[in-house]
Amino acid sequence: MTDIALGIDIGGTNTAFGFVDRKGNCLFEDSIATQTHKDVDLFVKEIYNKVHEALKKYNDVKLIGIGIGAPNGNFYTGTIENAPNLRWKGVIHFSDIFNKYFNLPVFLTNDANAAAIGEMIYGGAKGMKDFIVVTLGTGLGSGIVVNGELLYGHNGFAGEMGHVIITPDGRQCACGRKGCLETYVSATGVKRSVYKLLADNLEESELRDIPFNKLTAKMVADAANRGDKIALKTFQHTGRMLGEVLANTVAITSPEAIFLFGGLAKSGDLIFKPTRYYFEKNLLKIYKNKIKLLPSGLDDNAAILGSSALVWNELDKI
Amino acid sequence: MTDIALGIDIGGTNTAFGFVDRKGNCLFEDSIATQTHKDVDLFVKEIYNKVHEALKKYNDVKLIGIGIGAPNGNFYTGTIENAPNLRWKGVIHFSDIFNKYFNLPVFLTNDANAAAIGEMIYGGAKGMKDFIVVTLGTGLGSGIVVNGELLYGHNGFAGEMGHVIITPDGRQCACGRKGCLETYVSATGVKRSVYKLLADNLEESELRDIPFNKLTAKMVADAANRGDKIALKTFQHTGRMLGEVLANTVAITSPEAIFLFGGLAKSGDLIFKPTRYYFEKNLLKIYKNKIKLLPSGLDDNAAILGSSALVWNELDKI
Repeated sequence: MTDIALGIDIGGTNTAFGFVDRKGNCLFEDSIATQTHKDVDLFVKEIYNKVHEALKKYNDVKLIGIGIGAPNGNFYTGTIENAPNLRWKGVIHFSDIFNKYFNLPVFLTNDANAAAIGEMIYGGAKGMKDFIVVTLGTGLGSGIVVNGELLYGHNGFAGEMGHVIITPDGRQCACGRKGCLETYVSATGVKRSVYKLLADNLEESELRDIPFNKLTAKMVADAANRGDKIALKTFQHTGRMLGEVLANTVAITSPEAIFLFGGLAKSGDLIFKPTRYYFEKNLLKIYKNKIKLLPSGLDDNAAILGSSALVWNELDKI
Repeated sequence: MTDIALGIDIGGTNTAFGFVDRKGNCLFEDSIATQTHKDVDLFVKEIYNKVHEALKKYNDVKLIGIGIGAPNGNFYTGTIENAPNLRWKGVIHFSDIFNKYFNLPVFLTNDANAAAIGEMIYGGAKGMKDFIVVTLGTGLGSGIVVNGELLYGHNGFAGEMGHVIITPDGRQCACGRKGCLETYVSATGVKRSVYKLLADNLEESELRDIPFNKLTAKMVADAANRGDKIALKTFQHTGRMLGEVLANTVAITSPEAIFLFGGLAKSGDLIFKPTRYYFEKNLLKIYKNKIKLLPSGLDDNAAILGSSALVWNELDKI
């Protein structure tokens, strides 16, 4: 009998879920569209039915808990609170709804925190007690582990590095303020930087043929790899912003390592080189050349792994 | 028999020490000049002799431990490392030297961390698990408590909010970089801002008669209270810088309250009003009007209280 955790990653478009064992092997994986159900109860029921069916195929496993990573997930209350990308508005008592269907411990946190726990349990942060995971997706999230524990803070929403204001009166952010890091460093931030550079410069660029709504961060990376100057400058600028905020965050939390996770992190040297340069340039002397800046050690199913890791992390404490 | 802790606050000029009971009553207090002894061993011996003499006057007390707050103090190693304001250079194994003289547990940390523990044990943060203490002196220090524990980080030097870079290529900082918060928000920062404003503006000001080396933050506060426009603008600017960095730090650590400690904090509304304004203005929506910004609840002997509090905090854990 193998103990397994159900990991669920709720994204704006898709919700992925799967069974993961203690070593991080993903035995089963499936997904449903997040936005289909107006009624959140029916959304959970659909997951329950799929999980229930899947469990029948495994005789030798025992489901011991559920870990959920969700935008604006609050670990303390098991709620999803005013998530801008989800259709369920207000404060949703998500863990309670899962408890109606599953008679199992349910742990919920935001997706970046889940990624950090995943990194600690299965990934590159094994054995580390102080580290940061930065998730680079549509926005920028961060999970900060201090002294072996996730930093939740007083209200459960600590670790919002994406909403550190780096440029007062800078770019408009979805949070209602201006100049937040994620308006510069994220897939969306990269697009905005491309358009700013196209406006400010006269250089030829293949990106001049792509409308804003069609442009993806991947296209910018591909153009940069072909030597496109606007694309290269975009990554330089993105890395500068990220490096500066990471250096400031180090002064506050003193981590051993920082992991970059998500699509943008997969562009390799394009993002790592400038980020590392400006990170080191802005670090306090005592930290220079001492803090590892690494790609996430989680590969496929990273989001499911991260969510499932919550279960092991919490049950290990008991 | 009353248990007492010896609290020692090592400053650039004076070292204050005293006996403090569990409730925060300071039974005895004394100080020596920090810089007299080239040999750190003789410095510790002088404290030992004074403490030894003082103890003779109290029959009913039992000294149970020593808490030391020191610039660049490292809690993990009990060392003072490359403190710019002290004459003892390099890495000084301070706790070890104390152990030679006193057969007692010795706990050492930096002065801002000691202030934070003092706030938690005796001051306004009693019962709080997530809060920040900002010490405003010659420089700017911070002690960050998360989940009831000081945030030390991987190397023991977390919580250096004074070295968050707020203005890239801004004012030269003693740390070798530019634009650190403490070059704007500290007694020295206030002086620098006065001189910048005197240079940029034509307004009359009583501060135009005071040379840089004679000017103190207290003089600037007094001038502001008399309506001096340059002095008022200085506090406005100082509060803006502090409010912005505090709001960014809240996004990272999510505290319940922030306490301002030290000389500048005693200028009351002059510093609190602009700080609170820019703090609230820059906070993420979920935090607005929810985080207390307060003066330290420690009054006299605050530095000795803070250092002694380390003892209760650590011995309570055992």
